[in-house]
Amino acid sequence: MNDITMTLNADELIKMALREDITSEDVSTNAVMPEAKPGEVDLICKQDGVICGMDVYERVFKILDDNTTVEKYVCDGQEVKNGMLLAKVKGDIRVLLSGERVALNYLQRMSGIATYTHEVAQLLANSKTVLLDTRKTTPNMRIFEKYAVKCGGGQNHRYNLSDGILLKDNHIGAAGSITKAIELAKAYGSFVRKIEIETETLEQVKEAVDAGADIIMLDNMDVATMQEAVKIIDGRAKTECSGNVTRENIKNIIASGVDYVSSGALTYSAPILDISMKNLHAV
Amino acid sequence: MNDITMTLNADELIKMALREDITSEDVSTNAVMPEAKPGEVDLICKQDGVICGMDVYERVFKILDDNTTVEKYVCDGQEVKNGMLLAKVKGDIRVLLSGERVALNYLQRMSGIATYTHEVAQLLANSKTVLLDTRKTTPNMRIFEKYAVKCGGGQNHRYNLSDGILLKDNHIGAAGSITKAIELAKAYGSFVRKIEIETETLEQVKEAVDAGADIIMLDNMDVATMQEAVKIIDGRAKTECSGNVTRENIKNIIASGVDYVSSGALTYSAPILDISMKNLHAV
Amino acid sequence: MNDITMTLNADELIKMALREDITSEDVSTNAVMPEAKPGEVDLICKQDGVICGMDVYERVFKILDDNTTVEKYVCDGQEVKNGMLLAKVKGDIRVLLSGERVALNYLQRMSGIATYTHEVAQLLANSKTVLLDTRKTTPNMRIFEKYAVKCGGGQNHRYNLSDGILLKDNHIGAAGSITKAIELAKAYGSFVRKIEIETETLEQVKEAVDAGADIIMLDNMDVATMQEAVKIIDGRAKTECSGNVTRENIKNIIASGVDYVSSGALTYSAPILDISMKNLHAV
Amino acid sequence: MNDITMTLNADELIKMALREDITSEDVSTNAVMPEAKPGEVDLICKQDGVICGMDVYERVFKILDDNTTVEKYVCDGQEVKNGMLLAKVKGDIRVLLSGERVALNYLQRMSGIATYTHEVAQLLANSKTVLLDTRKTTPNMRIFEKYAVKCGGGQNHRYNLSDGILLKDNHIGAAGSITKAIELAKAYGSFVRKIEIETETLEQVKEAVDAGADIIMLDNMDVATMQEAVKIIDGRAKTECSGNVTRENIKNIIASGVDYVSSGALTYSAPILDISMKNLHAV
Amino acid sequence: MNDITMTLNADELIKMALREDITSEDVSTNAVMPEAKPGEVDLICKQDGVICGMDVYERVFKILDDNTTVEKYVCDGQEVKNGMLLAKVKGDIRVLLSGERVALNYLQRMSGIATYTHEVAQLLANSKTVLLDTRKTTPNMRIFEKYAVKCGGGQNHRYNLSDGILLKDNHIGAAGSITKAIELAKAYGSFVRKIEIETETLEQVKEAVDAGADIIMLDNMDVATMQEAVKIIDGRAKTECSGNVTRENIKNIIASGVDYVSSGALTYSAPILDISMKNLHAV
Amino acid sequence: MNDITMTLNADELIKMALREDITSEDVSTNAVMPEAKPGEVDLICKQDGVICGMDVYERVFKILDDNTTVEKYVCDGQEVKNGMLLAKVKGDIRVLLSGERVALNYLQRMSGIATYTHEVAQLLANSKTVLLDTRKTTPNMRIFEKYAVKCGGGQNHRYNLSDGILLKDNHIGAAGSITKAIELAKAYGSFVRKIEIETETLEQVKEAVDAGADIIMLDNMDVATMQEAVKIIDGRAKTECSGNVTRENIKNIIASGVDYVSSGALTYSAPILDISMKNLHAV
Repeated sequence: MNDITMTLNADELIKMALREDITSEDVSTNAVMPEAKPGEVDLICKQDGVICGMDVYERVFKILDDNTTVEKYVCDGQEVKNGMLLAKVKGDIRVLLSGERVALNYLQRMSGIATYTHEVAQLLANSKTVLLDTRKTTPNMRIFEKYAVKCGGGQNHRYNLSDGILLKDNHIGAAGSITKAIELAKAYGSFVRKIEIETETLEQVKEAVDAGADIIMLDNMDVATMQEAVKIIDGRAKTECSGNVTRENIKNIIASGVDYVSSGALTYSAPILDISMKNLHAV
Repeated sequence: MNDITMTLNADELIKMALREDITSEDVSTNAVMPEAKPGEVDLICKQDGVICGMDVYERVFKILDDNTTVEKYVCDGQEVKNGMLLAKVKGDIRVLLSGERVALNYLQRMSGIATYTHEVAQLLANSKTVLLDTRKTTPNMRIFEKYAVKCGGGQNHRYNLSDGILLKDNHIGAAGSITKAIELAKAYGSFVRKIEIETETLEQVKEAVDAGADIIMLDNMDVATMQEAVKIIDGRAKTECSGNVTRENIKNIIASGVDYVSSGALTYSAPILDISMKNLHAV
Repeated sequence: MNDITMTLNADELIKMALREDITSEDVSTNAVMPEAKPGEVDLICKQDGVICGMDVYERVFKILDDNTTVEKYVCDGQEVKNGMLLAKVKGDIRVLLSGERVALNYLQRMSGIATYTHEVAQLLANSKTVLLDTRKTTPNMRIFEKYAVKCGGGQNHRYNLSDGILLKDNHIGAAGSITKAIELAKAYGSFVRKIEIETETLEQVKEAVDAGADIIMLDNMDVATMQEAVKIIDGRAKTECSGNVTRENIKNIIASGVDYVSSGALTYSAPILDISMKNLHAV
Repeated sequence: MNDITMTLNADELIKMALREDITSEDVSTNAVMPEAKPGEVDLICKQDGVICGMDVYERVFKILDDNTTVEKYVCDGQEVKNGMLLAKVKGDIRVLLSGERVALNYLQRMSGIATYTHEVAQLLANSKTVLLDTRKTTPNMRIFEKYAVKCGGGQNHRYNLSDGILLKDNHIGAAGSITKAIELAKAYGSFVRKIEIETETLEQVKEAVDAGADIIMLDNMDVATMQEAVKIIDGRAKTECSGNVTRENIKNIIASGVDYVSSGALTYSAPILDISMKNLHAV
Repeated sequence: MNDITMTLNADELIKMALREDITSEDVSTNAVMPEAKPGEVDLICKQDGVICGMDVYERVFKILDDNTTVEKYVCDGQEVKNGMLLAKVKGDIRVLLSGERVALNYLQRMSGIATYTHEVAQLLANSKTVLLDTRKTTPNMRIFEKYAVKCGGGQNHRYNLSDGILLKDNHIGAAGSITKAIELAKAYGSFVRKIEIETETLEQVKEAVDAGADIIMLDNMDVATMQEAVKIIDGRAKTECSGNVTRENIKNIIASGVDYVSSGALTYSAPILDISMKNLHAV
Repeated sequence: MNDITMTLNADELIKMALREDITSEDVSTNAVMPEAKPGEVDLICKQDGVICGMDVYERVFKILDDNTTVEKYVCDGQEVKNGMLLAKVKGDIRVLLSGERVALNYLQRMSGIATYTHEVAQLLANSKTVLLDTRKTTPNMRIFEKYAVKCGGGQNHRYNLSDGILLKDNHIGAAGSITKAIELAKAYGSFVRKIEIETETLEQVKEAVDAGADIIMLDNMDVATMQEAVKIIDGRAKTECSGNVTRENIKNIIASGVDYVSSGALTYSAPILDISMKNLHAV
């Protein structure tokens, strides 16, 4: 994760998460360790997957105590194996214990998303179709989850409602027609934004491409229709297939020739990657 | 969710989530709808499960525009079916469109946790063993996720590091012994807190119960050992089995006679419950 | 200004501005008026121009006291004349006095930008060239200033560094070439973002358009070169002329056929529009 | 700018401004420079004027990355010339690029105000009349703008509504009379605050000085009347002339013998001073 | 307390205090009252004194639930007696219980300060000497505590370090002399601020008054010396005696003729006024 | 005070307190000292007592300027004597002057509470009865005040409404009976929390202990009744006597055999401990 993003955006969220978990103090740790004591602990992977969030993991401890050091042996996006030593964390044992849960909560979740994205992206390997995420992220976790998708081999769709235009059926209805909606969006939105529009029929596809849409979402179409749509569009716009990518339907999606396929499940249903901190000892 | 909790804690997090998703404005919506226009939309369940987060869902729209109304037909903790109409939302169509994603991101995730918890809790029905969550929650989502566990039929373990004491192997190591750790914890922690300690052997169980632990975690023990531990403790402390609850091992856990079983998966690996907003129309 | 933008973004900034100006209390007002007293005041224009910020003006008083009402007789973007009554504000006289300065500070500055933008935009009337703003806005005023540009008849360039890509000479240098820079930007940035690149020579223009740039900035070129550039591009990309628009050079810019001309002066050097509150009286 | 003011007040505003401009990340820069790379850039003046905001300029980069260093060759309040090298900034090139806009937005605006104030203050040189600013500052920029006025040779009027008392016609009306207003203000306000009151006639001046006003504002009076007022006051109170200071009327204002003249234009209508960052190169 | 001060300043502090006390929820109350239930409770004084903080008390409940109503029978600054009914609070019983502690913590402390201030102010009754507070307030309570001093019959000294100038021995030492310190302060500080300086000898008093100090603090002088100082100053500046006001020394302080006497004890050592909420019942 | 608590919780409160006191700048200091100048000052105790808050005192200066150093000669909880040198602070004299008031406001108040608590705790020495604080703390000071109680030899009762259960008469009334209230609390609250209940009669004591209360508060009982209650409870629950501890009644409370006695006065009515900063000089 970029250092500036970490400083300006992530730090504040991490501090909130630490306050959520520690609240006033870690009573258990403080009860048995009244004084600082230098120690070391291993970060160990307990499942195969793709690691993501190593900088965030480190930042959690640094925020608690800037003297903590994290020696990292892997970097974000790297494939890791069960049993691998990912890092060694050194510092006041009380800091290692009090920060452990928040650090792992971030790391496991981000790695879970990267791992799951990687699995899906593999299905698209050797095709021109690119895997995208959606805005179906956990509230106040988007910056971490969208980054995890990239580490897993996916690409990011728009980041929020103000940095991309996606005209859905309700927008088209309000505008009166696809052509009118695109016209209004071009007039209203900044010229640096592309315009994407949702279509359900080939007639709509034709209207959209003629009206100058930059990206056309093919919603709920069967493979034959998608292929026809791609033919109609003929490179004048990018195409996005929105929907489930499964081992079963993946070949068809690729075959349809769409440029992008988006999946909400990457962020909303990926299980975590099991990672733990072991062998804490004084040094 | 309690109104005071909503006002003091949830509101600020929901506003942050709205800023994360909307940022400066919903360009797509504002391009096609320059003026407010009253409308209505249905909230429909697309999967069987347990609903959770109806108040949070409502609050998202209320924060954007206090004139929005949400007519709710189900309440948190209720079992819902695919196709059920959960609520009708009425207000400025622009508000309905701009708030949709955040509202659903909360509702789907909370309902996903409630649904998964409910499934696991069912496995423990008709036993005295109670299902617990852990602190393995998504950062800055704890207040919503712990509530969802309760709606699904589980109970909450400690909320954070300062409102419960749990002495793990590292704490015991630092103190010198189980007895010493409990003694230090009693001296340091407020007398309103119970003291829980992790044990791995029957010797440790004996020491813990003699030292006055309120709750004894039986870590990684087989069923026979757990049964023996429960016998040793003989009601002088509560017992918690920490680990995976699966259809396979559940009978054994119950048979062991432990009071509680905790599961991190309730909050970290529950898939969302599919819910969507449909039939938006002007009124 | 959109109600949602007001609620999520502007409100917090307005509150900060009120705290900056009022700090603990308006001592002068509170000294002479210990009790609330209903009153009314006129908002009067003292210069010809384009009004902008009426909702922000109203919001300042509403935040101080929700019972204040503002009857508005003009709307944002409307041309106003010296002497015109723009609005009547009714409420506790203490609120009218304490909020006056902040309310006017916003309104005068936003109207100043709208007025100046309008003057420049008039120079481009009857041409296809569109006037754009830049990121040269006052810190923590962007949301208000970019809106004012739109009210004055300009359009907004990218809102911030993450919602648009503009590759300048340093980016090109770091990438190695224009082609390489565009390639990297396409790979890194979300596919919903257009890619703009800065060029100084016709060779660069050719390379940029061939590499698939969406927008080509023509930097510091004379009119003849710009015309040649537009011819080379031939509709395959949009063109932006960055630089001063003056009564003198405007015809040349239009004649060059560029699509957009951007001007930092719209936001950084527009003088305020003189507006004042008069005739305060009890009611 | 004082270090403590920077730490307690400015830092938070600068961070907000950086979040406003960078939002989640500088996509353009991050696309072409995936890794940190040390570089250097020159800060060059492109217009004659008075520089102001060098510490704020430096702070912007320090906040993004504490390892950035700014070698400053001028200090706030110093006159600078077109072409002058003001500073060299060294650090990660990505930080230099991502922070450039916000750093310049502050520096140019503060220097613009200092330059304009300096010009007006020069008109008052060799007289006893002192130039003052007003509360007509840009929202959330007061701390920077009032400081710029001082660097330009002006003095600050009250900072906010709670640290100075200025009784205007509405306050006098509410109190019943000038005498009563001053009496109420003395009773209500802290005894460490001076009391200023607005007067429009010589009768009012007499009443104000007799009632013990510390400062008397002479509102909209011609020179002869102002001279008469100064004579009546005879050193028993300070006098402030509120209104436009122009090359034309300046001699008259000085001749009237008033102690202070205040001008809102110093902060609300000063154009920026043109300054830019050039010659970025790796080191 | 002024409504604007409440909205802009107090509300945020009160919310923080509520989060400090309630944190995630009032478990005791929520356990026994799952549903809202209208109720009423009496606010009863249990000690004679001066009441202060009735609006803050009300605001605590309003912030938790805007439907709560507080019928107030006394107003700030009023003398109250043991046993008096101060107010009736009506609303959801859960809100009454959850807000009780924070509401009373504010009210008791503010009333304690008002009561103690009143006692001391009584000692100065029928003299021209006025009682002042200091900056020795509880961190993050100043707005409440300074207000309480006024309700008790005292006046406020400067509110903070930026709205008043008080030159102490260290400032004089740094400047070189009293005359030089006053000169520097006049040049640096805004002309709306008065200048106060600390003196320990009559020579210093002479120098201070000649240098144009507005207020002269007589530090640690005996009564005879103070009388002499007042004679020397002869109305050319106000005088402040800083130190303990006790029943024993009060006559002497008055006799010395000083204008003001300041006391830190008003805010740092006043015991609370005992007030409680009784007779909660459903309605 | 624990470093993590300082970082996550105290720092933000201290910064707020500094903004409250310094606001925009320390005008007096900045007027006479335009440049940084290294200096040193002594922290001297002016009253016998128990010191508390040395780390908070240090943190105030560190936040203003990280280069300040505080050499501490005493540690929290230590008994100190009038005249003792507690610490030497070295740094920019302007920082020493500007931070003095806030640093002392914390230190004096915390030491005042520690001192008063120590006095009361001494009365309980050689008994098994432990002294407790309450939630009657100053708003937004709890973290500091509860810590001070521990330094003075007391223990902390629950920290807030969500980390401990205390069922009072109103809760019992709402539940229907003591037994029912405890049952509801066990079902609702997390199993890591102890349950305390308030009793007024021996019948209630019996019911409470039979219902499984962990702690029983004996409210307003005479010594004989308390003794009887303790006998009835017979070690099955802890007992707390809530009420005034005075030199007069202390023997009786101890004699009753209760485990804990709680006192709100520890935090709400302790006078400050007099401490001051002296001998500031340049180095």
